[in-house]
Amino acid sequence: MLKPVDKNVLAQQCAEALFRHDRVSADLGICIVEVTPGHATATMEVRNDMVNGFDICHGGMIFSLADSTFALAANSHNLVAYAMGCHIEYLRPALKGDKLTAQATEMSRTRHTGSYVVSVINQHEKTVAVFHGRSSTREEPLIPKQGLPESHE
Amino acid sequence: MLKPVDKNVLAQQCAEALFRHDRVSADLGICIVEVTPGHATATMEVRNDMVNGFDICHGGMIFSLADSTFALAANSHNLVAYAMGCHIEYLRPALKGDKLTAQATEMSRTRHTGSYVVSVINQHEKTVAVFHGRSSTREEPLIPKQGLPESHE
Amino acid sequence: MLKPVDKNVLAQQCAEALFRHDRVSADLGICIVEVTPGHATATMEVRNDMVNGFDICHGGMIFSLADSTFALAANSHNLVAYAMGCHIEYLRPALKGDKLTAQATEMSRTRHTGSYVVSVINQHEKTVAVFHGRSSTREEPLIPKQGLPESHE
Amino acid sequence: MLKPVDKNVLAQQCAEALFRHDRVSADLGICIVEVTPGHATATMEVRNDMVNGFDICHGGMIFSLADSTFALAANSHNLVAYAMGCHIEYLRPALKGDKLTAQATEMSRTRHTGSYVVSVINQHEKTVAVFHGRSSTREEPLIPKQGLPESHE
Repeated sequence: MLKPVDKNVLAQQCAEALFRHDRVSADLGICIVEVTPGHATATMEVRNDMVNGFDICHGGMIFSLADSTFALAANSHNLVAYAMGCHIEYLRPALKGDKLTAQATEMSRTRHTGSYVVSVINQHEKTVAVFHGRSSTREEPLIPKQGLPESHE
Repeated sequence: MLKPVDKNVLAQQCAEALFRHDRVSADLGICIVEVTPGHATATMEVRNDMVNGFDICHGGMIFSLADSTFALAANSHNLVAYAMGCHIEYLRPALKGDKLTAQATEMSRTRHTGSYVVSVINQHEKTVAVFHGRSSTREEPLIPKQGLPESHE
Repeated sequence: MLKPVDKNVLAQQCAEALFRHDRVSADLGICIVEVTPGHATATMEVRNDMVNGFDICHGGMIFSLADSTFALAANSHNLVAYAMGCHIEYLRPALKGDKLTAQATEMSRTRHTGSYVVSVINQHEKTVAVFHGRSSTREEPLIPKQGLPESHE
Repeated sequence: MLKPVDKNVLAQQCAEALFRHDRVSADLGICIVEVTPGHATATMEVRNDMVNGFDICHGGMIFSLADSTFALAANSHNLVAYAMGCHIEYLRPALKGDKLTAQATEMSRTRHTGSYVVSVINQHEKTVAVFHGRSSTREEPLIPKQGLPESHE
């Protein structure tokens, strides 16, 4: 069995594996801050090409940040998890130049499904959106066994 | 009062005004097919830069198509409407090269709020996602009066 | 294979089987109006014991009507389906004495899951709430084989 | 201005005022455990008349517990708040005799709206459901001024 500290290492490796092929998150400039089992934090800056004529960020871009952070948390246990459905509530507009931080927390996880809440806050620590993601989990590792650090096996 | 045919013209003008400044929808290649009062149809092709390593479309991109189509329907009455919250359920994956069509339908509208359902289908007419959007409406025209065709006033 | 007319009979039998043990729906006075494959209509009157001090119906009671109608539609194909998650938007208050009608429509159904939209309207045909239900389907009949009319097999 | 300790007293008075006329919560046996500004905890036992033929609790009853707890938290600031929309995800079935506890937490609150997450757990501390409520706030006190303890004014 892996020790607690190793679970954190594994969660970070899962995050890296997930983002390696996620061109959308890369194009949006989403940066991983921290991933631990069941938790993830990521950031995104609201660029010129993410806003409408009133300099207000497109809802789909805020959603994408929350969704990617949810995916990091849901896949942090090294079991492939994908989104079944998501819910987002917008509380305040995000403006051009805002630095957004999304924090995902696992509310519950069973063998086949999980539920996550993501808060998106701006640089003034004001909540921009609250997001809820439901995941479906496959009993299949995200990182194949040979990908794990040998010393831990 | 505007005649029914004119409401359709107005709905299209609202759509054009909305998309003129929506760089996100333009960058995603979202195309308006038709907008009538309370309804909107738009399309998007799943490009290489919208998929992950398994050639499956990022949820945030499907959400963005649904969200933009919802915005077109919600703003079709020439009253500024913005999203308060959205809900999306994924039914089937969208793959690289898929041609997605989103159809938004107004379920109900009161003076201050509206509720819209959006179906996203692929080129095989299979449902990829079902989306639900809640709008908040301001008593403020999207197109200023001088922007309307004079002959209709 | 069952003929179309027989699918309607089966959908009704599923509805009866489902409601036989649903004491909550019975206690709330929920009445089935019609069930066909993927569709269901049911009614409920807002009683004295369903309202708060301002004679406005408790949200949980409107939800329960929508939820039961969703269950009827989701189980209409004679495969056990249960709710994974639901979303409700309130558009107008329901008042004491209002006669509510809920109509559930199947938006999509795959082998393992389904998506349903339910509209709740009052006696003036005004929308009180819009509901969205996600079902999980088991490959197990709701009505055991001997329960089906023999002549149809 | 009220001191912190008084805000807790006020939150409890709001809870009592809200539940005084809430016959649905009373009929369901929902008990308030604690209410502080932005937070609420309440309990409900799954009775015989809340289950179906398989002794599994009706989703509408779990929703009603979560919804009432959300209402307690949303109204804890002595400003009338009502539900605009709610979202519930079911994680595990609730069985006859289960003692459910719902805990509502305010995620964010602006002048006109608020967002709340409610966890519903059973007596084994397993999550049964996760609920998300969106409130609309009126600038109107729940308890008229003469109802407040005089010594605090």
